[in-house]
Amino acid sequence: MTNRIPPRSGAAFEVKAGQTLTVTDPMGGQVSDLVAFWREDIGEWLSNGRTFDYGETIRVAGEGTVLWSNRSRPMLTITRDDVGVHDFLLTPCSREMWPIVYPDEPPHRGCLGNLAEALAPYGVTRDAVPTAFNVFMNVPVRPDGRLSVEPPVSKAGDSLILRAELDLIVGLTACSAGASNGGTFKPIDWRVSD
Amino acid sequence: MTNRIPPRSGAAFEVKAGQTLTVTDPMGGQVSDLVAFWREDIGEWLSNGRTFDYGETIRVAGEGTVLWSNRSRPMLTITRDDVGVHDFLLTPCSREMWPIVYPDEPPHRGCLGNLAEALAPYGVTRDAVPTAFNVFMNVPVRPDGRLSVEPPVSKAGDSLILRAELDLIVGLTACSAGASNGGTFKPIDWRVSD
Repeated sequence: MTNRIPPRSGAAFEVKAGQTLTVTDPMGGQVSDLVAFWREDIGEWLSNGRTFDYGETIRVAGEGTVLWSNRSRPMLTITRDDVGVHDFLLTPCSREMWPIVYPDEPPHRGCLGNLAEALAPYGVTRDAVPTAFNVFMNVPVRPDGRLSVEPPVSKAGDSLILRAELDLIVGLTACSAGASNGGTFKPIDWRVSD
Repeated sequence: MTNRIPPRSGAAFEVKAGQTLTVTDPMGGQVSDLVAFWREDIGEWLSNGRTFDYGETIRVAGEGTVLWSNRSRPMLTITRDDVGVHDFLLTPCSREMWPIVYPDEPPHRGCLGNLAEALAPYGVTRDAVPTAFNVFMNVPVRPDGRLSVEPPVSKAGDSLILRAELDLIVGLTACSAGASNGGTFKPIDWRVSD
């Protein structure tokens, strides 16, 4: 069964070890922020720092790539990657971000607010949301370290598939920030499969 | 008063808003992992993702650079930077890291264990330690995203000075991982000034 996250909103759900999570961009050019916590103890969470360290790269993409927890355990492994461009540097957009980054736009609670609401039933607070794995997000980094947020290169129907290595709680969004998705707000589809 | 952190250990202390923290490499070529939490509520912590986002760079260095919290408030501002090379990508080394990264070396509890012990009196748990700001750590990133841990370029007596923008609890280490500091384990000095 495929589920749809409406534009500028989020969802949270369980994925058991061995199951796969498919994240699909149904219209193309959209971003989905992904966070994960161990089902048995939400003190264990998906960590960009550990993933960069053990993978020895900031480009977290491609089949076989492992996403690690703060306790140094594999949480998710990419098993199919139609796009190959994702970001693990930037935090979910938030109400506080708008006046800093988009001062001329009306503020939105953003992916952080959406994740916090969706994850609340699992006991995950807003403060406990770490830097997200931003599926399909296109953040080039120049040789001097400067970064920019560019439109995603994902096309309609492109997917990322990840295998859960632990029983997980996953938070997922259809991103709320204009720059991340080329200026339009679109849905994200997801499916959990055995 | 200057305090010394012995090799492969850590410390935690308070820094009030407006005070400065000086981190000095007394022998040269050493790394110090720095984490910070708001004194009034440790749910607010120093965030690499927010700092990359608002600074629009992964090279967090140089006078005037702001380090941001997960709640999008400035926590620390660099007021003097003798070295200009630091890392905010990688997590503190940990006991679990050794078999993955240094399989031929005896495991050590690492900066994560040292930070957890030092921060425990303030209520900060091991799981709540985020990706650290790794003072003097030299992590070049190649155009394809691949990174490597190289010896620091800091010389004996080089300092980084940061102004606290909030009342903070700071955790600080003399790093325990051989690759981070060119293969030797050395102390780190720190001082809080009004």
